[in-house]
Amino acid sequence: MNPVIDLLKSHRSIRKFTDQKIPHETFLELIRAGQSAATSSHVQAYSIIHVTSPEKRAAIAELAGNQKYIETCSHFLMFCADMKRPTDAAERAGAEVTRGMTEQFLVASVDTALMAQNVVIAAESVGLGICYIGGVRNNPTEISELLKLPDHVYPVFGLCLGYPDQNPDIKPRLPVESILMEDEYREDTGLVAEFDDAMRLYYSQRTGGNKDTNWSEQLNPLFSSKLRAHMREFLARRGFEMK
Amino acid sequence: MNPVIDLLKSHRSIRKFTDQKIPHETFLELIRAGQSAATSSHVQAYSIIHVTSPEKRAAIAELAGNQKYIETCSHFLMFCADMKRPTDAAERAGAEVTRGMTEQFLVASVDTALMAQNVVIAAESVGLGICYIGGVRNNPTEISELLKLPDHVYPVFGLCLGYPDQNPDIKPRLPVESILMEDEYREDTGLVAEFDDAMRLYYSQRTGGNKDTNWSEQLNPLFSSKLRAHMREFLARRGFEMK
Repeated sequence: MNPVIDLLKSHRSIRKFTDQKIPHETFLELIRAGQSAATSSHVQAYSIIHVTSPEKRAAIAELAGNQKYIETCSHFLMFCADMKRPTDAAERAGAEVTRGMTEQFLVASVDTALMAQNVVIAAESVGLGICYIGGVRNNPTEISELLKLPDHVYPVFGLCLGYPDQNPDIKPRLPVESILMEDEYREDTGLVAEFDDAMRLYYSQRTGGNKDTNWSEQLNPLFSSKLRAHMREFLARRGFEMK
Repeated sequence: MNPVIDLLKSHRSIRKFTDQKIPHETFLELIRAGQSAATSSHVQAYSIIHVTSPEKRAAIAELAGNQKYIETCSHFLMFCADMKRPTDAAERAGAEVTRGMTEQFLVASVDTALMAQNVVIAAESVGLGICYIGGVRNNPTEISELLKLPDHVYPVFGLCLGYPDQNPDIKPRLPVESILMEDEYREDTGLVAEFDDAMRLYYSQRTGGNKDTNWSEQLNPLFSSKLRAHMREFLARRGFEMK
């Protein structure tokens, strides 16, 4: 439809990067583009830790489930939801601040995601590849200590940025009709079944017939395993008590 | 730096729209661009309700705090975090599913935000204006009933889309140095104070001297009022128990 929409539709995660480094001024422009995203009540409830130390990158790579590209990408960023800056600022300005509300956790997490997605689009527009790293929530306590995150700040996800050294396929998405509804919620398991067939074909073709699975089956370990069951307690300890 | 980054940096919320309607094929392209965003483990934990009924639009406008542009924009969308579709699919494929985990709430909320931000960028790239509506969380129970949202689905935010009939200023953001840190968290209240001065000037200039406030002071009601204190209980009732 236009070059921006073409860019958005061309996204795929990149996990192999060349040695080329992102110029500093380009990098700063990506972050500024991130900051331009909408923010709930102007709260800007996020911080980015740019992890440059090779030792910290190696530690995070291991803590996030042995994701080596955290070490080999040009820039690795930790996107943190940050309710400390705005609540401290309001307190200095005389507010009697209540912290730890579920709504605050949600606002900070969503603010962080909107900002990160702008960084991602900006990065892809200059030819960079990206990979979100949700695996940082495998060991959020250790990572928070490593990056000296104070209370009311937590790592939502990491982001690898660098020049792509691979050209993977674009992964299919659910049919638009299954996620877009009119005026009320409508379940359509038939469309999910269609997508399962499409994904089985996709996995089979990419692996020469070696991967026989579909979307629903792939989700099995995600929901059977109580994935990251520590999150509730971790967040409460860091001041996100979900009041 | 390039037209995409220029587009990202030109964002401001639009709350006044012309009568022009978005062509249907353009609208679908925006949604498809949204679906191309990264998604945690391919889970695609979101649904969009396109609210076309004038009665429902009027009801939501009131429930969201009398935001009339919900009625006057071309398209109004409710972005819902949807853990029903993926967990039901995994269950049909034989998984013994655990629901209600804090991690699942986070994954679904972040997935929804990344997807929505892609819709926003796509929309702005074709000349549309947008406004996120966090106010839908003022009355999430009523809105969930109105849109017949089942358990494990909740409205994260709304989005107004339409052709702009106003040209507001771009709102300043915190200095990049205050949100971008290297290797560890670093607090800089001096930069916040600088930003407070800049915002005081901004508000004053836009109102002919009538608005004497700054960023920190503006945040006061947000944190003093226990804003949306019902969210914890609302979410628990809808199957997001934060286990």
